[in-house]
Amino acid sequence: MALSVEKTSSGREYKVKDLFQADFGRLELELAEVEMPGLMACRTEFGPSQPFKGARISGSLHMTIQTAVLIETLTALGAEVRWCSCNIFSSQDHAAAAIARDSAAVFAWKGETLEEYWWCTERCLDWGVGGGPDLIVDDGGDATLLIHEGVKAEEEFEKSGKVPDPESTDNPEFKIVLTIIRDGLKTDASKYRKMKERLVGVSEETTTGVKRLYQMQESGTLLFPAINVNDSVTKSKFDNLYGCRHSLPDGLMRATDVMIAGKVAVVCGYGDVGKGCAAALKQAGARVIVTEIDPICALQALMEGIQILTLEDVVSEADIFVTTTGNKDIIMVDHMRKMKNNAIVCNIGHFDNEIDMNGLETYPGVKRITIKPQTDRWVFPETKTGIIVLAEGRLMNLGCATGHPSFVMSCSFTNQVIAQLELWNEKASGKYEKKVYVLPKHLDEKVAALHLGKLGARLTKLTKSQSDYISIPIEGPYKLRLYRY
Amino acid sequence: MALSVEKTSSGREYKVKDLFQADFGRLELELAEVEMPGLMACRTEFGPSQPFKGARISGSLHMTIQTAVLIETLTALGAEVRWCSCNIFSSQDHAAAAIARDSAAVFAWKGETLEEYWWCTERCLDWGVGGGPDLIVDDGGDATLLIHEGVKAEEEFEKSGKVPDPESTDNPEFKIVLTIIRDGLKTDASKYRKMKERLVGVSEETTTGVKRLYQMQESGTLLFPAINVNDSVTKSKFDNLYGCRHSLPDGLMRATDVMIAGKVAVVCGYGDVGKGCAAALKQAGARVIVTEIDPICALQALMEGIQILTLEDVVSEADIFVTTTGNKDIIMVDHMRKMKNNAIVCNIGHFDNEIDMNGLETYPGVKRITIKPQTDRWVFPETKTGIIVLAEGRLMNLGCATGHPSFVMSCSFTNQVIAQLELWNEKASGKYEKKVYVLPKHLDEKVAALHLGKLGARLTKLTKSQSDYISIPIEGPYKLRLYRY
Amino acid sequence: MALSVEKTSSGREYKVKDLFQADFGRLELELAEVEMPGLMACRTEFGPSQPFKGARISGSLHMTIQTAVLIETLTALGAEVRWCSCNIFSSQDHAAAAIARDSAAVFAWKGETLEEYWWCTERCLDWGVGGGPDLIVDDGGDATLLIHEGVKAEEEFEKSGKVPDPESTDNPEFKIVLTIIRDGLKTDASKYRKMKERLVGVSEETTTGVKRLYQMQESGTLLFPAINVNDSVTKSKFDNLYGCRHSLPDGLMRATDVMIAGKVAVVCGYGDVGKGCAAALKQAGARVIVTEIDPICALQALMEGIQILTLEDVVSEADIFVTTTGNKDIIMVDHMRKMKNNAIVCNIGHFDNEIDMNGLETYPGVKRITIKPQTDRWVFPETKTGIIVLAEGRLMNLGCATGHPSFVMSCSFTNQVIAQLELWNEKASGKYEKKVYVLPKHLDEKVAALHLGKLGARLTKLTKSQSDYISIPIEGPYKLRLYRY
Amino acid sequence: MALSVEKTSSGREYKVKDLFQADFGRLELELAEVEMPGLMACRTEFGPSQPFKGARISGSLHMTIQTAVLIETLTALGAEVRWCSCNIFSSQDHAAAAIARDSAAVFAWKGETLEEYWWCTERCLDWGVGGGPDLIVDDGGDATLLIHEGVKAEEEFEKSGKVPDPESTDNPEFKIVLTIIRDGLKTDASKYRKMKERLVGVSEETTTGVKRLYQMQESGTLLFPAINVNDSVTKSKFDNLYGCRHSLPDGLMRATDVMIAGKVAVVCGYGDVGKGCAAALKQAGARVIVTEIDPICALQALMEGIQILTLEDVVSEADIFVTTTGNKDIIMVDHMRKMKNNAIVCNIGHFDNEIDMNGLETYPGVKRITIKPQTDRWVFPETKTGIIVLAEGRLMNLGCATGHPSFVMSCSFTNQVIAQLELWNEKASGKYEKKVYVLPKHLDEKVAALHLGKLGARLTKLTKSQSDYISIPIEGPYKLRLYRY
Repeated sequence: MALSVEKTSSGREYKVKDLFQADFGRLELELAEVEMPGLMACRTEFGPSQPFKGARISGSLHMTIQTAVLIETLTALGAEVRWCSCNIFSSQDHAAAAIARDSAAVFAWKGETLEEYWWCTERCLDWGVGGGPDLIVDDGGDATLLIHEGVKAEEEFEKSGKVPDPESTDNPEFKIVLTIIRDGLKTDASKYRKMKERLVGVSEETTTGVKRLYQMQESGTLLFPAINVNDSVTKSKFDNLYGCRHSLPDGLMRATDVMIAGKVAVVCGYGDVGKGCAAALKQAGARVIVTEIDPICALQALMEGIQILTLEDVVSEADIFVTTTGNKDIIMVDHMRKMKNNAIVCNIGHFDNEIDMNGLETYPGVKRITIKPQTDRWVFPETKTGIIVLAEGRLMNLGCATGHPSFVMSCSFTNQVIAQLELWNEKASGKYEKKVYVLPKHLDEKVAALHLGKLGARLTKLTKSQSDYISIPIEGPYKLRLYRY
Repeated sequence: MALSVEKTSSGREYKVKDLFQADFGRLELELAEVEMPGLMACRTEFGPSQPFKGARISGSLHMTIQTAVLIETLTALGAEVRWCSCNIFSSQDHAAAAIARDSAAVFAWKGETLEEYWWCTERCLDWGVGGGPDLIVDDGGDATLLIHEGVKAEEEFEKSGKVPDPESTDNPEFKIVLTIIRDGLKTDASKYRKMKERLVGVSEETTTGVKRLYQMQESGTLLFPAINVNDSVTKSKFDNLYGCRHSLPDGLMRATDVMIAGKVAVVCGYGDVGKGCAAALKQAGARVIVTEIDPICALQALMEGIQILTLEDVVSEADIFVTTTGNKDIIMVDHMRKMKNNAIVCNIGHFDNEIDMNGLETYPGVKRITIKPQTDRWVFPETKTGIIVLAEGRLMNLGCATGHPSFVMSCSFTNQVIAQLELWNEKASGKYEKKVYVLPKHLDEKVAALHLGKLGARLTKLTKSQSDYISIPIEGPYKLRLYRY
Repeated sequence: MALSVEKTSSGREYKVKDLFQADFGRLELELAEVEMPGLMACRTEFGPSQPFKGARISGSLHMTIQTAVLIETLTALGAEVRWCSCNIFSSQDHAAAAIARDSAAVFAWKGETLEEYWWCTERCLDWGVGGGPDLIVDDGGDATLLIHEGVKAEEEFEKSGKVPDPESTDNPEFKIVLTIIRDGLKTDASKYRKMKERLVGVSEETTTGVKRLYQMQESGTLLFPAINVNDSVTKSKFDNLYGCRHSLPDGLMRATDVMIAGKVAVVCGYGDVGKGCAAALKQAGARVIVTEIDPICALQALMEGIQILTLEDVVSEADIFVTTTGNKDIIMVDHMRKMKNNAIVCNIGHFDNEIDMNGLETYPGVKRITIKPQTDRWVFPETKTGIIVLAEGRLMNLGCATGHPSFVMSCSFTNQVIAQLELWNEKASGKYEKKVYVLPKHLDEKVAALHLGKLGARLTKLTKSQSDYISIPIEGPYKLRLYRY
Repeated sequence: MALSVEKTSSGREYKVKDLFQADFGRLELELAEVEMPGLMACRTEFGPSQPFKGARISGSLHMTIQTAVLIETLTALGAEVRWCSCNIFSSQDHAAAAIARDSAAVFAWKGETLEEYWWCTERCLDWGVGGGPDLIVDDGGDATLLIHEGVKAEEEFEKSGKVPDPESTDNPEFKIVLTIIRDGLKTDASKYRKMKERLVGVSEETTTGVKRLYQMQESGTLLFPAINVNDSVTKSKFDNLYGCRHSLPDGLMRATDVMIAGKVAVVCGYGDVGKGCAAALKQAGARVIVTEIDPICALQALMEGIQILTLEDVVSEADIFVTTTGNKDIIMVDHMRKMKNNAIVCNIGHFDNEIDMNGLETYPGVKRITIKPQTDRWVFPETKTGIIVLAEGRLMNLGCATGHPSFVMSCSFTNQVIAQLELWNEKASGKYEKKVYVLPKHLDEKVAALHLGKLGARLTKLTKSQSDYISIPIEGPYKLRLYRY
């Protein structure tokens, strides 16, 4: 796509695939609203008081239908919003169109190049005069990363006149980040520092993004307060677990139509994501084998009748391979060469480097046959057998299907809204330092409570004497902080 | 579409949506072949001897990728083939294109009108001079029905000069059938009787189609031998059960992206199809309620922890409704009016009259909003609440997703191939009268055996003394005919 | 025990372990009645008309609490009853005591020797003057066998003066049968023929017993009509499946307290019994592997994610081995030698020869350590490792636990009552020849219907137009005879 | 029983039911050792260095076979041990006999009165001259409670001469505690203070006991260091969850033989124990309904397809009721009156006051019929219907079955051994203050690792570059402290 910003008739900026898909997007948005009771309850509770009046929010988070409901919840609470996706394949073009036309500045489409991706991220942070956003909604930490790297480069440039050198890194994506920052220095050598000044804080919702934040906190380089939304119970134990349990088979079926029953499926990692994937595959009739480094998680899998082996043990016997680790180099090209013909390889963990895509792409004589977008068959020259790689090694549930369903995302996103409100309301109080915080348990419980009515649940209430007996307030919080659910 | 037959460069007739999708179809066909070991084994075992040499086969069966592998198995065994779909929404256009270009005469596309549908069925049976097909592969019995109705009309016409009166029926689809036959009488008043003469037999694979055959057998009106493929264990206990367990959630997710976990789902009917649907929904985290007329099936559901209620008991409480009965009038417009906003209503049983589509369409003031093809929201005027109907009440797994996966269809279709071979090989022997037959158990067991290797299974073999002890041949058949599996 | 018949104060014969357990038995009987709605409904429906008035019924069927409710249903309908168990370990002494004291002549205790077992069977058939019983309730066919062998011997004796030679067989149990018959010939050389004359018929409820009957039917040696209760859907698809799903883990836990989760369990055979066992073990968290000879059953297991291997493949890796086949020589001593230390070996199929108990007992140097009754550790001399054998290779759910629970036995036993009524009511009509019959479907459906209310189920009723549409009577039967459920 | 201490020939004190059961206990102990790899690994690793040389350990923990393996692990590491049970019904007499004869001083039998129970607890703490134990292994905190109450009374007595007044409390059990302490004051008014002086610390393994400890920590009344073993992942997420998943159905089946399939089961509470119970009941074919106060746990249940209602909603419809809350007054007599005939009521949570046993026992006209020990039917006078209460409202898995299986207890008890070692090794270092501690994650992971080999698992190892990438040491710990598993 030609990388130029477009404008709606009302003057709002955007760049999406096709604005004409806005009507379709709107219809699906309306369906999703019914499935997202937490977000709709936020609109009801907070909408009238317009708490985000005057707040600029930039979001870097998969531009899906569910995210669209989040965006319109933020605008319903008074915010001005700019948005980009945090994954080159995860945008839903009709969702982006509806938001661009109706609600917020969006820069996102399905199938961005990496250059386009970072251009979109820049646009999302670019609020014109007066610096950047007040608040960031982040997923994976790319918006946060760009600002931190930008500030670092500006300070170095001021000090030594040195500009970032894209050739200093082997990582092709980081090359692009450095290029953008280098080029930015020419026009405004204090852009990211001005952003930093204005920024009230970020709320981040992935395991990986959160880990980056804790590392920055420890090294003392974190530039603004952060709320770790990922570790809300109603996020990590719901979105990661039940979301993946839904969207892994969805992605597999849309991409390959393969029968899961009877197959041998290997799930690499048995954290929340891996637990969801293994449950889904098992229930669909696959025989599941898990690989793990952590003996506790391994023992949990065993208690569910799941075998724990190494990838090497089963690489030539399994039919489906799923990475869920958040680590890198899980499935290497050398593993892929040994797989059965048409074995399916996919990632639902974090970055595409869980699968050795680079090793695969550069394997001598390998042939790539695109069955359809996001479904490629790679044929090895020696054996003429092929493997099927989904979403080019990126998140297969977003690349090949539509990601997690609305209901579970409503839990995650209600946490995001509450975190954003908390940061914004306390912006002047000094409550939040340049550290990483989790939401208090009573808010976590509130998120859950907002989702019970839709499912027809009726909670029991403690009596006064029960409350006294177990020393738990009638209104909660009901558990100690360490409780594991 | 303009209803005119087109021809390939080699002169083979066809009518499909877009021949340019043939390459894409071929890629998916190649994937499917790996998943259909039974059909591929038939090619290996029977291909060299070309048993279908000289045989004309007409098929009326969902024109999907899996069916394409069936068609090319028939041609690999020497047959000439013409094909149409047995459902207006079930064709996969890329599959039809690949077959049209490469292998057989195809008349099928996704989204036919009923007129187009019966035009296609006619084309499929029309082999030009020399009458019709030698063999029919049927699914639901429409090809068989057309011939039987045609013969009846021709005989009546010869006797009394009377032609069929489309106005004699309320059923809109049967009106079309009578019209076609009436119009055909003008040009050739013995067309269907010539077909009947030539026909060696039909193999039929659905519960509903088979029931029609037994009824004709009983009333003495069956015109040619029929093999009931549906009641092969490797069909009804696999395709119906495991196929639907896979494709029901697939259809739900593709059509609505709804989170199944936490929802209340009502499955009408607990036969093989209902069992598969209930299992899938339960495993995905829904609370499942079943409605049944048969106390035995009801007791089976209860033993799995599934509640048995009537539709009236739960109509206003449930989120998802699935009909699986093969009967009519299961969910009436009066039920639909009482449902929750955005309740999902769909059918995976047989005909679209399981759901009262007619009542819905003619409900005063009802408004239909098409979210996307096959996904409609119907809004009632009094309540402004809507329900979501999938595939216009027709088979939702074929309309909204891609039907059953290849592996399980390989079981069903291997039965079809074996049945066709049996009919053709015995065409002169008199073995088969104008009756309905099931395949012998050893062939059923053979179909299963052909699918074990792909899943890495290793069977145990009876010893001679064990075989003697239980009076079962070492090579099978291993069970009595009444055995229920 | 000293084998002498005792008498109650009212003069009824019995031989049980301890009549003082009658009160305890009565309490458990009363609990069981609440769980056996089918039997209680029979009492309500048929009790007033006393249809069994004048009928003598002999039963050879595990003398458990559930059977006690069956017996008292028969007596409530007017019958006189004599009973023995069909398994040396399956009697529950408190059940036997309650029946002996209150209702019928019982000859059964837990832990009979084989000699005692056949003595009890003789007593059960011995109605004094006037020959034997009018009706037999059989489980496994031992009562039927004894009469058939007896008649054969008497005829041979009359013809040639030859008496049966116990040394003519290697089977230790059959030796005893021949001895009993031989000894009986001395006192009454027409006892069994008189029984045969009087006998109206037998109803048999096991796969194995039924198979013997069909073999006798085919060879023309069946001496009286038989109703195959096993093949009622409400028997084989309930008792065999759901009964074993309950009682296999019950037996394992009572005998060994072993944690099932995490273990590798091998189930030999995947018929109804094997399906129930595999489901139970899987649900308890074991990794289940199935061995099968039948490719269809094997494919069913695979569709549930269960691996199919041979016993040899896994013998040294698994923790729990269960035989469910009805065949012999499934687990041989040579397998047992290779098992892990404390591997558990048990049988829930039919006879104890599924496990090579003879090979184990005679293995040179093997040492048997009885942990508690029915739980033995056998230590091999070479390895000093031991295996744990339950119930001496006999039915472990009856030997180590209390067999199937009341509710599912109510289904089986209601079939028995209905079969007995049918035989008795038609005794003079000639409806039943010396053949094997199954109950008609509407009675099968009635059995199911009698069990729905207890579980709170509400059936749907066909409308007239639905009934017409699918040609199924509103009141059933709802399925064709071949339907597999 | 006459409450007098007995002595073995070697002079060790004990009081058990029947020392002649020691052989049987030893056989089961040997089986259990094979299932408890963690404890056996401790013997191998630490046995040679005799780390507990000179340590006196008192344990108050269900005197089962599994506990016997724990006790003999402690003695194998050099400790001297005295033991009592922490529940009047949970002792296994053969286990107690084997330990009493062979290894340690035991005061425990199945079916103690409350007076006997506290007498046993006193004996367990009574090491004669030189004060009490060095270390306490506690389960529920009764040993810890007695010492704390004793010290409090002694201090009050010293100060004011006042002795505890048993009449000052309504709680019948606490009355006994006060009586014991009061009586003790007469002979030695500093007994408990001497104990306190000597005590190095306690390790506690239940949710309830741990809560008491935290309350004492907060109020500053905790007298010695405590290690919270309950919150080791390998305890609370294994013993509580998988242990109950195993032992709840075991208890139900042994006590009532009831068929679980088809029943409606209510689980009060969806913590780890409730999750295990609900899973077990669901898998056995029950329809499960959960009651909860905590919206997060409620939402988890809903995601598994489990309905959330209040007890009032379902009290008259359900068949089985299980309390798992750790709270009191969950099922009141007023609920019980409304239940169906023969509804089963049981507790697997903590104290017997989860069920209103007092209300039941004192209900006017209620009649108790003991079916067998621990299985009582209570009949209400108005309705003549009865309910079945297990284990008199106490832990039904220990009262009616044999508690959790060895393998999962090996996880819990390995944590106990490690905690005891840690306390003892650091007794002089001042590392542990009078506070509550949890074990560090690497020890938790070690416990898991010790249990993998038995289940044939093969862990994956991080590479150096993977370890760097995610900043996790190759040898662990693998997760942050807050990780929820």
